[in-house]
Amino acid sequence: MNSALTTAGITGRTRVYGILADPIYHVKAPEVMGALFARHGVDGVLVPLHVTADGLAAVMDGLRHLRNFGGFIATVPHKTAMTDLCDALTREAEQIGAVNCVRREADGRMVGTMLDGIGFVEALRASGLEPRDRSAALAGAGGAASAIAFALAEAGVSRLTILNRTADRARALVERLRTAYPTLAVDAGGAQAEHDLLVNGTSLGMRPQDPSPFDLSALHDGQFVAEAIMDPETTPLLAAASAAGCRIQKGLPMLERQIALMARHMGAL
Amino acid sequence: MNSALTTAGITGRTRVYGILADPIYHVKAPEVMGALFARHGVDGVLVPLHVTADGLAAVMDGLRHLRNFGGFIATVPHKTAMTDLCDALTREAEQIGAVNCVRREADGRMVGTMLDGIGFVEALRASGLEPRDRSAALAGAGGAASAIAFALAEAGVSRLTILNRTADRARALVERLRTAYPTLAVDAGGAQAEHDLLVNGTSLGMRPQDPSPFDLSALHDGQFVAEAIMDPETTPLLAAASAAGCRIQKGLPMLERQIALMARHMGAL
Repeated sequence: MNSALTTAGITGRTRVYGILADPIYHVKAPEVMGALFARHGVDGVLVPLHVTADGLAAVMDGLRHLRNFGGFIATVPHKTAMTDLCDALTREAEQIGAVNCVRREADGRMVGTMLDGIGFVEALRASGLEPRDRSAALAGAGGAASAIAFALAEAGVSRLTILNRTADRARALVERLRTAYPTLAVDAGGAQAEHDLLVNGTSLGMRPQDPSPFDLSALHDGQFVAEAIMDPETTPLLAAASAAGCRIQKGLPMLERQIALMARHMGAL
Repeated sequence: MNSALTTAGITGRTRVYGILADPIYHVKAPEVMGALFARHGVDGVLVPLHVTADGLAAVMDGLRHLRNFGGFIATVPHKTAMTDLCDALTREAEQIGAVNCVRREADGRMVGTMLDGIGFVEALRASGLEPRDRSAALAGAGGAASAIAFALAEAGVSRLTILNRTADRARALVERLRTAYPTLAVDAGGAQAEHDLLVNGTSLGMRPQDPSPFDLSALHDGQFVAEAIMDPETTPLLAAASAAGCRIQKGLPMLERQIALMARHMGAL
C-alpha cells in the first residue's frame, strides 16, 4: 500500500488504539480495523505496538495514562498474562482464562474480554455453517483453541473432540469444558473422520515445515474444515481439504468478524 | 480530511512515533509529519498521545518497552519535566533546560533534544530573513521563548531584548544567555520600536481574549514580525503587523522546519 496514505487524516482529535504482540510484523489488525473505521467514519487509528513479555506490565501502566487511548487487541504471546494485568474481565475472558481485547475506560481502568471464539463462530455462520448439533474436532488446546472450544460449546455442538500433541493439556481443556457445559459430549483424542467440522486452533501451518494438525489422507467431502491461521491465507490443511472436496473457511474472516466485536468492546463503534 | 484515509497503509511493519501533549486536540504534528513521511517514503506513523503531567513518568516507562516505537515530540506542558525523565540530553536541551523531541534507542534509552529554536531560525532564513547582526525583541521567557532566544543568540543577532510579563523570569533568561554568550548585548524590558525583528514566544494570541504580546500601535514597516503560535494561523499580532506594513512569518513554517529536524533526531529520516 502506498506510504503516501500512511498517516493521512490523523489529527490531534484522532483516537488511538493498538495491537500488542511479539513478534509484531505479521499482524493484520491495523489494516482490517482501519478499513472498518473508514467504513463507519470513525476518527481512529490502530497502531502496532511491539512488546515482549517482560515489558508488558510497564506498557499496560503507560497506556492507562494515555487519555485518548481507547484500548487494544492482545495477541501472541500476551493473551494469558493479560488476565492478571486487567482490572476487570468479561465472563468469556474468565472462563477461557485469556484476553484478546482490552477497553481503556475514561479513568484508566482496563477491561479485558476474549472474542477469538465468538468471532470464529460468527464467521462459520456467515459462511453458511451453523455449528448447532454438528460434531466437531478441534486441533489444539492453547489460548485460541480454548476460546474456539468454549464458543463451539456455547453454540450447541452435539459433540466436541480435542486433539492435541500434549495429551495433558487436551484433558485439562476437556475438564474445564465439562465443568462449564456438563451435558456436552466432549472427549480428548479419537478419530477425526467421523466429525462434521474440523477446526485448526494450533499454529501448525504457519511455517512450511510444520506437521499437519490433522491426518490429511482422512479428509473427505461432507466435512467442513476451518482454519484459525491467517498467514498464509491458504494453509496446507486448507489446500488438502479443498482437494478432498471439503468446504473450507480461511482464518481471515474470523479476524474480520472479531474486528467488529473488538471495535464495539473498545467503544469505537 | 476523509476518515477513509485515516489508517490506510499502516501494517505490522509500520514504525510508530508520538506527540505527547495536554491538551492534545490542537496538535498539528501528526499531519505535518505524515506529509513528510509520505514525501520520503517512510513507513511510519505519528499519533497523538494525550497525557497529563501526573501520568508522564508512567507513559515514558511504557514507551521505553515498545520496541517498534521510534520516539516522540514533547510539547506543552511537558517540555521542562522531560529533562529529568530522559536518559541523555543534547547540548541544546541542556542549555535551554527543556526537551521537545525524544529518540527511543533500540535498548529503550531515551535521548532528548530541543529543536524549537533551531527550527524557528531555519524558518526565518527560509523566509529571507538572516538574523545575523539584526536586533531582536522576544516576547516570553518560557520554554519556547528560551529555545528561540538561545537559537537567535547562536545565529549571531546584534542585540536581544527579552520582554516578559513576569520580570523575574525575563531576568533569569537574560542571565542564562549572558553566561552562554558573554559578548551578546542582551537585556530585559525596553522599547520594541527600535528592533528589526519582533518574535512572539508566548502563548498570547491563541485565545481571542488574550492581551497582545507587543504594543500593536508601535509596529512599523521595516520590522519583521514572527510568531511561534500555529493556531490560529494568523494571530491578532500578525494581522496588525501586516496592516502596519511589516513582513511577517506565521508559526507553521517553524513547525515544518522542525518536523524534518525531529524526524532526523528520531532516526526516521
